[in-house]
Amino acid sequence: MLPAGGSVASRHIQSRIQAQRDLLQSAFTRRQVVIMKQWETVAIVGVGLIGGSIGLALRERKLARTIIGIGRRSASLQKAKQCGAVTATTTDLARGVAKADLIVVCTPVADIVAHVLQVADACPATALITDVGSTKVEIVGQLDKALNSTGDSRATFVGSHPLAGSEKTGPQFARADLFENRSVIVTPTRSTPKSAVELTKSTWESIGASVVIKTPRDHDRCVAAISHLPHLVASALANATPTADSYLAASGWHDTTRVAAADAELWRQILADNRLHVLKSLDKFERVLAKFRQALEKDDQNKLLKLLEAGKQHRESVGN
Amino acid sequence: MLPAGGSVASRHIQSRIQAQRDLLQSAFTRRQVVIMKQWETVAIVGVGLIGGSIGLALRERKLARTIIGIGRRSASLQKAKQCGAVTATTTDLARGVAKADLIVVCTPVADIVAHVLQVADACPATALITDVGSTKVEIVGQLDKALNSTGDSRATFVGSHPLAGSEKTGPQFARADLFENRSVIVTPTRSTPKSAVELTKSTWESIGASVVIKTPRDHDRCVAAISHLPHLVASALANATPTADSYLAASGWHDTTRVAAADAELWRQILADNRLHVLKSLDKFERVLAKFRQALEKDDQNKLLKLLEAGKQHRESVGN
Repeated sequence: MLPAGGSVASRHIQSRIQAQRDLLQSAFTRRQVVIMKQWETVAIVGVGLIGGSIGLALRERKLARTIIGIGRRSASLQKAKQCGAVTATTTDLARGVAKADLIVVCTPVADIVAHVLQVADACPATALITDVGSTKVEIVGQLDKALNSTGDSRATFVGSHPLAGSEKTGPQFARADLFENRSVIVTPTRSTPKSAVELTKSTWESIGASVVIKTPRDHDRCVAAISHLPHLVASALANATPTADSYLAASGWHDTTRVAAADAELWRQILADNRLHVLKSLDKFERVLAKFRQALEKDDQNKLLKLLEAGKQHRESVGN
Repeated sequence: MLPAGGSVASRHIQSRIQAQRDLLQSAFTRRQVVIMKQWETVAIVGVGLIGGSIGLALRERKLARTIIGIGRRSASLQKAKQCGAVTATTTDLARGVAKADLIVVCTPVADIVAHVLQVADACPATALITDVGSTKVEIVGQLDKALNSTGDSRATFVGSHPLAGSEKTGPQFARADLFENRSVIVTPTRSTPKSAVELTKSTWESIGASVVIKTPRDHDRCVAAISHLPHLVASALANATPTADSYLAASGWHDTTRVAAADAELWRQILADNRLHVLKSLDKFERVLAKFRQALEKDDQNKLLKLLEAGKQHRESVGN
């Protein structure tokens, strides 16, 4: 067995990851000199786990005077208000955003474009609109064309994707610290005003996150590998486990399949929206899986050990 | 979307799993009337996470007067003694087991047969020997032939596999409660004396575990699906993630790949030893993966939703 971190490949991986951590760390350091904007009125469209956590995080830091929760169901909005995630609620989107300075759209991926367009029709022209969608090419592409590229005086949209969450859903699972030390990918295009990008960035930083800027395409390619493929694999693994045996499943199975318990309809939208990048990530995963299969079929134990060592090195270099 | 647990298939899965849980529960209840045997001398061969936890669990419940830790390296044995997992240590296996009533062999899968044979040559003929190996067909098959089927007056071997552990290794991670509410599979054969099976069973129950009896073959088939395949998949996923992107990995990736950080050499032995069952489980996983691929390639969103829903139902029915 190679000693942990002993090989040239392992040191190379670790030094690259360290360099990227340093970059993130410097983002954290910079955050401390960011002037935290205090918003008069923030509107959150869709107050679930993510939307609720944004509300709680802003309130805890006293970064917003009024936070309006907007949704379709009064019962769910009431729950969000009881949790302290919002200060007011409404099911009327146009009324809810009429005086908002910042609007965060936290609805499912397939609804985001329509909701942002409705928001833009009703909110002040000076407002900033962002979202939390897990895919970006489709969403940002459509909204860029409709809002940022027209030269009219409507509000500005900047795409965001906080890499935080859970397999759980609903405002009752919201947490004020959900974004602390987590990454948020912000995805401007050539038509996105620089000031709006800066404001989006500093808003996420003000609730504890570290911001990474990527193009929408680079975002979708990256999250296909680190989030969408793992979800698909976890779901396939849960599916493939014989029901008769699963009562004996221990922590390994529990961890490896945990995300499969997330909302199926949300993930249908995400995987379908990013299907070309997910298919490319799946290609790569299947190539590695074929190497494992070959090593097992040929009883090639050296090859098997090398594959397991490479997996261990990669897993350990990322940390927990 | 189907309501959670609403479909006939889901109710069927849930009722089967509930029936199996009830069986386990009744095993827990029965445990309360088991007379807990107090051992004079227990020997643990290989005092890592599992061996150390057995020692701690027996000591905490005052179920053994002397616990002898046996290993190759004095430094590691000292650590185990400092943790309180054993009361005495030795690097001399024959001396360590000379007066033992119970010997638990906790060494890697590839070493178990040789170690049990060494133990049997040196321990009292009345002693009970068990192991904690993650595979059973090879180990139990060989030891059955050498010990239980010969009719000589050597000690008896009964195969065990506690479904507990961690990606961590070493006695410093040992915990007295590691086996509480966990399952242990005990794998007798026709030649295993019934009294030895009962004693093995009550020993695991005395430290909080619930025991399931399976044939070695049924054990290997079952753990291929619930443990060995998930490990292989997690390792392949860690391998397939581009290094440049992994600094952005969030909790989904962390959970899904966690077990890939476990000892590579230990897992080489386990996967190689159980390769035929692992290959069958891999076949099944690849068939499900191919369905996901097809749904994505054809943009068949109904199919994609159905697959995700089935994964969610299965994952939720098992719990955490």
